[in-house]
Amino acid sequence: MKRRISYHLANMAQALSLGLLLAFLAIQSCIAIELTDHIDLWPMPTSVSHGTQRLYVSKDITMSMEGSTYPDGKGILKDAFQRVVDLMKLNHVVDGANPSSFVLTGVNVVVHSPEDELKFGVDESYNLSVPTAGYPLRVQIEAQTVFGALHALQTFSQLCYFDFTSKLIELISAPWRISDTPRFPYRGLLIDTSRHYLPVTNVLHWHIVDAQSFPIEIPSYPKLWNGSYSFSERYTTSDAVDIVRYAENRGVNVMAEIDVPGHALSWGVGYPSLWPSDSCKEPLDVSNNFTFGVIDGILSGGDEVNTSCWTATPHIKKWLGEDVAPKVVAAGLRCIVSNQDKWYLDHLDATWEGFYTNEPLKGIDDPEQQSLVIGGEVCMWGEQIDASDIEQTIWPRAAAAAERLWTPIEKIAEDPRLVTSRLARFRCLLNQRGVAAAPVAGYGRTAPYEPGPCNHKN
Amino acid sequence: MKRRISYHLANMAQALSLGLLLAFLAIQSCIAIELTDHIDLWPMPTSVSHGTQRLYVSKDITMSMEGSTYPDGKGILKDAFQRVVDLMKLNHVVDGANPSSFVLTGVNVVVHSPEDELKFGVDESYNLSVPTAGYPLRVQIEAQTVFGALHALQTFSQLCYFDFTSKLIELISAPWRISDTPRFPYRGLLIDTSRHYLPVTNVLHWHIVDAQSFPIEIPSYPKLWNGSYSFSERYTTSDAVDIVRYAENRGVNVMAEIDVPGHALSWGVGYPSLWPSDSCKEPLDVSNNFTFGVIDGILSGGDEVNTSCWTATPHIKKWLGEDVAPKVVAAGLRCIVSNQDKWYLDHLDATWEGFYTNEPLKGIDDPEQQSLVIGGEVCMWGEQIDASDIEQTIWPRAAAAAERLWTPIEKIAEDPRLVTSRLARFRCLLNQRGVAAAPVAGYGRTAPYEPGPCNHKN
Repeated sequence: MKRRISYHLANMAQALSLGLLLAFLAIQSCIAIELTDHIDLWPMPTSVSHGTQRLYVSKDITMSMEGSTYPDGKGILKDAFQRVVDLMKLNHVVDGANPSSFVLTGVNVVVHSPEDELKFGVDESYNLSVPTAGYPLRVQIEAQTVFGALHALQTFSQLCYFDFTSKLIELISAPWRISDTPRFPYRGLLIDTSRHYLPVTNVLHWHIVDAQSFPIEIPSYPKLWNGSYSFSERYTTSDAVDIVRYAENRGVNVMAEIDVPGHALSWGVGYPSLWPSDSCKEPLDVSNNFTFGVIDGILSGGDEVNTSCWTATPHIKKWLGEDVAPKVVAAGLRCIVSNQDKWYLDHLDATWEGFYTNEPLKGIDDPEQQSLVIGGEVCMWGEQIDASDIEQTIWPRAAAAAERLWTPIEKIAEDPRLVTSRLARFRCLLNQRGVAAAPVAGYGRTAPYEPGPCNHKN
Repeated sequence: MKRRISYHLANMAQALSLGLLLAFLAIQSCIAIELTDHIDLWPMPTSVSHGTQRLYVSKDITMSMEGSTYPDGKGILKDAFQRVVDLMKLNHVVDGANPSSFVLTGVNVVVHSPEDELKFGVDESYNLSVPTAGYPLRVQIEAQTVFGALHALQTFSQLCYFDFTSKLIELISAPWRISDTPRFPYRGLLIDTSRHYLPVTNVLHWHIVDAQSFPIEIPSYPKLWNGSYSFSERYTTSDAVDIVRYAENRGVNVMAEIDVPGHALSWGVGYPSLWPSDSCKEPLDVSNNFTFGVIDGILSGGDEVNTSCWTATPHIKKWLGEDVAPKVVAAGLRCIVSNQDKWYLDHLDATWEGFYTNEPLKGIDDPEQQSLVIGGEVCMWGEQIDASDIEQTIWPRAAAAAERLWTPIEKIAEDPRLVTSRLARFRCLLNQRGVAAAPVAGYGRTAPYEPGPCNHKN
């Protein structure tokens, strides 16, 4: 699911990244619904045209940056390109012989802005061109920022597949011309590490603390993580810094959710004076200056954390019903849609069709009020989620919401049945790339109910 | 689960290996049950003694092979040591300062046999010593074969943990002296890729072909995999070779299960003459010489596959009830126990307690007949299993059977409740190492039912 997450704190989540999942956070589709019988990309991009030529991807394909003003000092593009090349193999042994013609030997990436700070509203657009003429044959990617280029690389990876006859990575329907940009700047996924601890590898997006546990280290108040479930179910400050960097390199922002004064029972395990009394432990004692000192210590993120992504902005209330967004924007407030009846992943009876058809602008006709809806977020509350079941509870339903948040409304199918096949094939791609995405049919986190192919639709 | 799989074909499975899982296939316990309140290792080894000293693992710990006659030409030990060092970190950032004393700076591995062919019955024993005196402090590992040394490295990795105060890998209760060897040479796990395709990353142990699909390439009969579910749900011969090597480097043998003449409907998709008639497609037409030519082609494993692990041996019948093993060995036949009422992982109502208490020698008192039971196997039949749910359906129940198959009978708890805590903590270790093992309590593949710590027992 492609995401940019704006900077606000209260009741928002800290987006952290999971290797297995993040490779798929920036995937777009490159073909109209009616052509998806042979093109399986998700979600749908803004503009696509393609031809009929089959191309082969060289086993030695390289990336160049001719004409780019972006230095890639952090190696963001270099690393992303290597990940994409690995992903395309789907863990198969690619040992066919390179043909003499129609071989893609390179990808040239042109990024116009030398900046790579992941600010809210950063330009994520890109142009992707896969030519069939010229020598050498090189994919052309152009983007304003490195983050648009990351999306382009993910799109390219979905155009490619392992062919079992040639034993090579191939690409059909070239030449391709794709122009793409997201519909909403905010496309979020919330992960809750308070109700159950999630190992570092499993953390994607962080509802970091709640009444049940306080798993993260706050150096200025070292007893706070005495509220963790156990000595091992914790995150150090260095873990957080490491995960923030990991996410930024993939175009994902890390956001903290810290609820106060409610949902903070676990804070008092290490500092009982935060509790009004032993018999009344919630909400926090706001008559006590120490409480605000602790909150400041948490918001500062620990002395070593880059706090640029921790900036507080106006509180945006969730747990909202379908009809609340129009009232919020009518009041002139920005809004992120995350209605529990449709976009709460812990509701297993919420089907992918419901995730797909949930329109953030429903009931909002005034363009100015529409512009106050900066996006939406699917929520993976953790009461019954842990490392054993989180991936198949999130996927593929989160991908259905991703297309709703990325793709121009005029390209979104009104009848989800029109995209079931494409989503089912995307789910198989997630499986082949190592993500435990569940079958699309039926409820969330369902098991296959009989023998059959991966893209079984019902 | 530690495994060695003997060479026979009919109704047996081809053991292939999964990166995430295989790191945990060779794990032993190093402490008596009554001491497991602070030592969490699984399964129990043959002999253990330990002290009370805390040690620190150097961030620059290195492996040496002084006194070893094993050249490690394939890099089996070198790679295994690197994996173990990575595993010990549990994906945390290890950035504490090395203390001045009690620091383990190295692991010295002595392997006596230069051979590393993974034959049935290969010596898997090892001695592991973690000293507290001497300079430099180095772990000592001694084994007859490299495969015993792999087990020792896994045991060492379980002695270590990430400490959230020192931000270092630590090891308590040193000095350690462990002598260990498996009770049964055959400790198997069957995975079924016919009823649902499993991507290469997910394949562990291969029931390769059944009536539903024929996913693997057989070069001498290239139309056989026309019986695959789709063009993408296939394994090339090179994939198989790659997976066989991957498994061997981890002490796991790869075995093929090819059922004939039944369970072979999918063969005829590419070669209809294998079917007796269009209306009768099973069993294969054994009056047709072509049928035997195809079987030969499959057993030869494809021109490029090392066929040393494909050698046919006497058929051993499974689907056996509890009481069948005594009859089989009474008849003088070798037996692998895999009773469906206790050791079929697809039976979600089979709890870990049943996996743990299932004794392969039950009802067999004659030592000679006991020696005919070469081990056991848990089976992950694939009718309702795919990449989305296979890990949590296998783990932790397979680990419960692993201790039954590895640990001396006199060290096995008669009441499984005595080991619930240790297994629950081992399940958390699997989660932290990236394996989606389900909670231990209740049925197989259960979800956590309320907020709480990972090692919640009920």
